[in-house]
Amino acid sequence: MSSTVGQVIRCKAAVAWEAGKPLVIEEVEVAPPQKMEVRLKILFTSLCHTDVYFWEAKGQNPVFPRILGHEAAGIVESVGEGVTELEAGDHVLPVFTGECKECAHCKSEESNMCDLLRINTDRGVMLSDGKSRFSKNGQPIYHFVGTSTFSEYSVVHVGCVAKVNPLAPLDKVCVLSCGISTGLGATLNVAKPKKGSSVAVFGLGAVGLAAAEGARLAGASRIIGVDLNPARFEEAKKFGVNEFVNPKDYDKPVQEVIVEMTNGGVDRSVECTGNINAMISAFECVHDGWGVAVLVGVPHKEAVFKTHPVNFLTERTLKGTFFGNYKPRSDLPSVVEKYMNKELELEKFITHEVSFSEINKAFEFMLKGEGLRCLIRME
Amino acid sequence: MSSTVGQVIRCKAAVAWEAGKPLVIEEVEVAPPQKMEVRLKILFTSLCHTDVYFWEAKGQNPVFPRILGHEAAGIVESVGEGVTELEAGDHVLPVFTGECKECAHCKSEESNMCDLLRINTDRGVMLSDGKSRFSKNGQPIYHFVGTSTFSEYSVVHVGCVAKVNPLAPLDKVCVLSCGISTGLGATLNVAKPKKGSSVAVFGLGAVGLAAAEGARLAGASRIIGVDLNPARFEEAKKFGVNEFVNPKDYDKPVQEVIVEMTNGGVDRSVECTGNINAMISAFECVHDGWGVAVLVGVPHKEAVFKTHPVNFLTERTLKGTFFGNYKPRSDLPSVVEKYMNKELELEKFITHEVSFSEINKAFEFMLKGEGLRCLIRME
Repeated sequence: MSSTVGQVIRCKAAVAWEAGKPLVIEEVEVAPPQKMEVRLKILFTSLCHTDVYFWEAKGQNPVFPRILGHEAAGIVESVGEGVTELEAGDHVLPVFTGECKECAHCKSEESNMCDLLRINTDRGVMLSDGKSRFSKNGQPIYHFVGTSTFSEYSVVHVGCVAKVNPLAPLDKVCVLSCGISTGLGATLNVAKPKKGSSVAVFGLGAVGLAAAEGARLAGASRIIGVDLNPARFEEAKKFGVNEFVNPKDYDKPVQEVIVEMTNGGVDRSVECTGNINAMISAFECVHDGWGVAVLVGVPHKEAVFKTHPVNFLTERTLKGTFFGNYKPRSDLPSVVEKYMNKELELEKFITHEVSFSEINKAFEFMLKGEGLRCLIRME
Repeated sequence: MSSTVGQVIRCKAAVAWEAGKPLVIEEVEVAPPQKMEVRLKILFTSLCHTDVYFWEAKGQNPVFPRILGHEAAGIVESVGEGVTELEAGDHVLPVFTGECKECAHCKSEESNMCDLLRINTDRGVMLSDGKSRFSKNGQPIYHFVGTSTFSEYSVVHVGCVAKVNPLAPLDKVCVLSCGISTGLGATLNVAKPKKGSSVAVFGLGAVGLAAAEGARLAGASRIIGVDLNPARFEEAKKFGVNEFVNPKDYDKPVQEVIVEMTNGGVDRSVECTGNINAMISAFECVHDGWGVAVLVGVPHKEAVFKTHPVNFLTERTLKGTFFGNYKPRSDLPSVVEKYMNKELELEKFITHEVSFSEINKAFEFMLKGEGLRCLIRME
């Protein structure tokens, strides 16, 4: 048993003291896990747009000082009271949304939107006692989406921790704890393209490319990437994208372009930009009779989805998904296995790597739109 | 072999000479079936809103004189060249939309929107030669949606004819050739509620009640009828509706009322009015995580469906259906069997009955909103 069990751990964390200001590596105190919590030693983390969004905190409730970070992999250091499914030494992925296994959503085969542990971006404290487990010189530092992985140690609700194969390389599978699973699951779990079918993917960032990777895994024969940046097509080829449409190249709506090039529409589409016009295009470009469009990208608060209802009546389906419809604890281990079986390729998503002390570089890469995922090594 | 084979048949038909004017029973000539056509002796027909809509011809291309009618049952009198699946004496339901069994839609498991024989309300002639098979004193009389069942004999493309169990009473199963299958299939084939689930049905006309009947068959435990006319609730109880909401009774949108009374939303909803606001309500009243809304009612040409995309992203699904997703030839025989097995009840849909000579009474009942289906006996 680790000598740190039940003790406060002093370790390094990258603290966001103010909106938009570079993170500062600080020595912080991490309290022991309370009831139904686990304390994790984070080994690898990576940066996702959502971290940047809440770091910039434009137009949102600012919650600072805060430890951001939610795509990560680590090892259980110790567990709190009542935790029976995990023990020290387990290899895990912390996840920004949880699975209590008790609520109507967790009991439904169709939903992963746990009532208790569904993502909450405003809350900066633990559920059980409304307090933070992080502090510096007695000043609390807030949590982020229940994970706060930009720290050598973090305390997470047991419902937000997926135990994975201990043989899995954590520097690869860490990217499965958010964006890659989101895109992959949108295709595999929700759009469900058949072998030989056509799939359009709107937005060729990490999530969109993961959606394309899902289409490749499903055996889709036409994978059409849609993006305003033509430079992305070359990289997208690695993810199975074999046709490219840049809406800027046409005078008509991109849905019309896609309908023409596919003789009536694609079988499936996956929207990963969050732009409302792309959402409408993604829906209207699917084939009548059987087409399914899946929305992944998060829209602007005031966005309104508009279409003629006849587009539905001619047997098109529109669905949305959250975290690729994966239940974090029940389903992520099998996604890790897909990587272990060499079905799913993860290396190609990790385009950059920095040490923890260089974490602000990861923010710079993302702000410049450079690369897909930047791995941050904690040690 | 019938002595009429290959001959022109002279028989009675109810001719719509002008938009909105009472039909006139006339003696007409019905030409023999051509290649891939069959000539049917119609025994029973019933009146559907679509007949009335095209009879009124408000704002549409008027196609007159025309023989309306598309909900019916009859017996094959003779078959044209190339017809191998049907022969004289077969008991059949003519259907306003067909199944060629060759096109991409017919080959898809998911679609029933046949490329060749999909409903066409403008065409008043047969596909093969662009001519009508009906005439009076040499003047052609136009067909309606390929069925024209307000005639003792009619010529129909073989792809629009479902062969059914010869033991099935045609005066009951005739209502399956349009509205009842549309509502029933919307629930059973598209919404697919689970046993014990909750279903909201918008619009308690014949199609909506058939959707409710589908929910009853599927074992839904809460079937919530939504209609502006409270008088409809009493009748709706026979179809399994066990709760009633009149949007007029509330100051807030009906979707909010339903979300409150169901602790988060219904599991499934089926929209059978065609009103755009009802469509939006039907979508927004389903539960996040797993709710599915199905659109059946045909909207106004300029209607726009609007909702906040977050309603999709929280894992709601919106689908539309056409003829309950039944493929007419492949699937209707099994719906007839559901009636034969006493699973499905059809008698309760047939609230009125007239002889063929009184066909204009059926129009009056429908215009007054009286009853569900009026059976018209041809003999």
